[in-house]
Amino acid sequence: MNIVVAQSGGPTCAINASLLGVIKQALKTKEIDAIFGSLNGIEGVISDNLVNLRTIVRTNEDIEILRQTPSTVLGSCRYKLPDYCDNSNVYKKITDCLTRHRIGVFIYIGGNDSMDTVMKLSKYFSDNEIDIKVIGVPKTIDNDLCCTDHTPGFGSAAKYVATAVSEIASDSSVYSISSVTIIETMGRHAGWLTASASVLRANGDEAPHLIYLPEVEFSQEKFIEDVKNEMAKHKAVIVCVSEGVSLQNSVGYRSGVVDNFGHEYLSGVGKYLESLVAKEIGCKVRSVELNVMQRCSSHICSKTDIDEAEEIGAKGLLAALNGATGKVMVFKRVCDAPYTVDVECADVDMVANREKFMPREWINERGNNVRDEAVRYFLPLISGELNIIMQNGIPRRFKL
Amino acid sequence: MNIVVAQSGGPTCAINASLLGVIKQALKTKEIDAIFGSLNGIEGVISDNLVNLRTIVRTNEDIEILRQTPSTVLGSCRYKLPDYCDNSNVYKKITDCLTRHRIGVFIYIGGNDSMDTVMKLSKYFSDNEIDIKVIGVPKTIDNDLCCTDHTPGFGSAAKYVATAVSEIASDSSVYSISSVTIIETMGRHAGWLTASASVLRANGDEAPHLIYLPEVEFSQEKFIEDVKNEMAKHKAVIVCVSEGVSLQNSVGYRSGVVDNFGHEYLSGVGKYLESLVAKEIGCKVRSVELNVMQRCSSHICSKTDIDEAEEIGAKGLLAALNGATGKVMVFKRVCDAPYTVDVECADVDMVANREKFMPREWINERGNNVRDEAVRYFLPLISGELNIIMQNGIPRRFKL
Repeated sequence: MNIVVAQSGGPTCAINASLLGVIKQALKTKEIDAIFGSLNGIEGVISDNLVNLRTIVRTNEDIEILRQTPSTVLGSCRYKLPDYCDNSNVYKKITDCLTRHRIGVFIYIGGNDSMDTVMKLSKYFSDNEIDIKVIGVPKTIDNDLCCTDHTPGFGSAAKYVATAVSEIASDSSVYSISSVTIIETMGRHAGWLTASASVLRANGDEAPHLIYLPEVEFSQEKFIEDVKNEMAKHKAVIVCVSEGVSLQNSVGYRSGVVDNFGHEYLSGVGKYLESLVAKEIGCKVRSVELNVMQRCSSHICSKTDIDEAEEIGAKGLLAALNGATGKVMVFKRVCDAPYTVDVECADVDMVANREKFMPREWINERGNNVRDEAVRYFLPLISGELNIIMQNGIPRRFKL
Repeated sequence: MNIVVAQSGGPTCAINASLLGVIKQALKTKEIDAIFGSLNGIEGVISDNLVNLRTIVRTNEDIEILRQTPSTVLGSCRYKLPDYCDNSNVYKKITDCLTRHRIGVFIYIGGNDSMDTVMKLSKYFSDNEIDIKVIGVPKTIDNDLCCTDHTPGFGSAAKYVATAVSEIASDSSVYSISSVTIIETMGRHAGWLTASASVLRANGDEAPHLIYLPEVEFSQEKFIEDVKNEMAKHKAVIVCVSEGVSLQNSVGYRSGVVDNFGHEYLSGVGKYLESLVAKEIGCKVRSVELNVMQRCSSHICSKTDIDEAEEIGAKGLLAALNGATGKVMVFKRVCDAPYTVDVECADVDMVANREKFMPREWINERGNNVRDEAVRYFLPLISGELNIIMQNGIPRRFKL
């Protein structure tokens, strides 16, 4: 029997670790012959664009470099599988490709949208009595997947955000005049990543002084009031804000660009609030957009995250070999300290096309910071560092 | 005899290492009693706001944490010392403070503008036969100081830029459609930092495909032509551009804000070019501003840079103890490989208020990339990593 693995959705630091988990588990499994990778997610299966991973990941060095390489070495896609009744042709192409290559297991590493593909495909195979197991391995820096304690990729993104906010706080505190620094983080609907900056509290930091999440209605008047209050207490005020906070009746901060899944690309909330502070308070103010560095800064990835991503990839393959299909692998947290998690299976229809938000009770009443429960949740996820292999002073990256 | 040390200008990852070099050398020097730090650069001397560094940096742990802390623990300033004939009062205040504290040596760690203070103050003391030695220790991520091979702080900034560009290149290459990513780096007049992204070439990377520096006149027509040419060769085109490239006749990209030294804060060149590509080519395009992370990302600092910053601080104090004044410490490169540098003294008036630019012969004829000479120059400066001390998954920072 052969297997195929693919990567989909937005890049993270941990997707290649999950790929590695699948490959290493496959290499240990006698009944598996070829290990195929599909280029650009499901698109590679549709267009019969598969590569032989046994020849691509060969040495221990390959393994170490792949583990520390951000993004997706097999490429990604944002392809949304049509409903079978709308377009059966694409399902036939997929089935042709997979049966021609004697594929028994298809592992799809991706986020909410990719789980939609897992759901549709597994249902199609079951309905048509085609014996191909389809398993989803989650990934997203947004941490917004249901049924799982957290998602692979989130811990590394959170570690980068916390580190950057800490360093920016040092940077912003040097002058004797008062200042406000607004740091915009990713998160369209869920504020997990923005909220993760609160971990600095564990090291005795007061920054970030204000945290705004999409889960709470945003009021520009309250925001200015909050900033003024913090300026009375601190010389250099640090504000973290999700790209997705809702600035009702504001113009000029929405990009208007929509992806295939109907998500609007947002940008410029930080810049907008910078202008607002300049206008309403008139102090020194700067905005910083952490941008794609949040999802690709593997040089400061979380070892916990990378190790877990590898483990959940391996366990996804094992679940398929044990007969599971239409499932997503999830983490169940057993304990915060000592941190322990179990890996389990969840039904894909409980995960696909759904979002998980920060619990309102983890956010303070005023809606401008998070409570210690959130800090306790985040801390183990950013723990530990990889020994990054460097070449000429720069982290090495795996190339296909 | 006592000494005082101060930090000035924009933050870098290496200013605290130079402070540490001064402190460690002072602790080894029997004739030095008190080691004072002036808060917020020369402003702390003017307002008699000094701290006792012997009680602040005490343990080996203090030393290790201080070394890995970005920005300036003593605070900074952008205070421009007036000419003596315009305002003698401030010179009297400085002299009063320094003589009251029995200061024999004043070490000023800073950039071009801070060297203006070193020049004026040392001349004032010499002219008035006041026996206080004034020595400048350079720092700037811009690498634009004359008389020195490079500046402390640059190597770490360059290592961050190269790492970020490498990771963003991974991030941008995942989809099957063509895209352009424009990365805006700091550098008002000198393109050193932007050009440093070229080191990826040493690891076999083709990115960044285009590099635009303030040293070369920028043509929007040629830029679009360049991007189109690269798009014909590469799926994901990476462009690095200095914030200071001159976009003549363009509106909406200059901030118009000017600091005390008459420098305009620039921002938005990346965003402007993003819009230009969207309009003229119509492909997928994104701009990323590396912003202050370039100067404060100590978690990926260059060990070479930090070690040299410490050494040049120590040698600055030694030079003063040997009678030098009105001097700036500089690096003379002896050899690229094996990389060796000497530390020497230069006259401060050869450094203050001047700028050093990328040699035109290190830039290609078309003005859209750099030659291998530049890569050979940059590579040793980004070499090596510190063992960063972490706490709760985040780098520890020194706090006063």
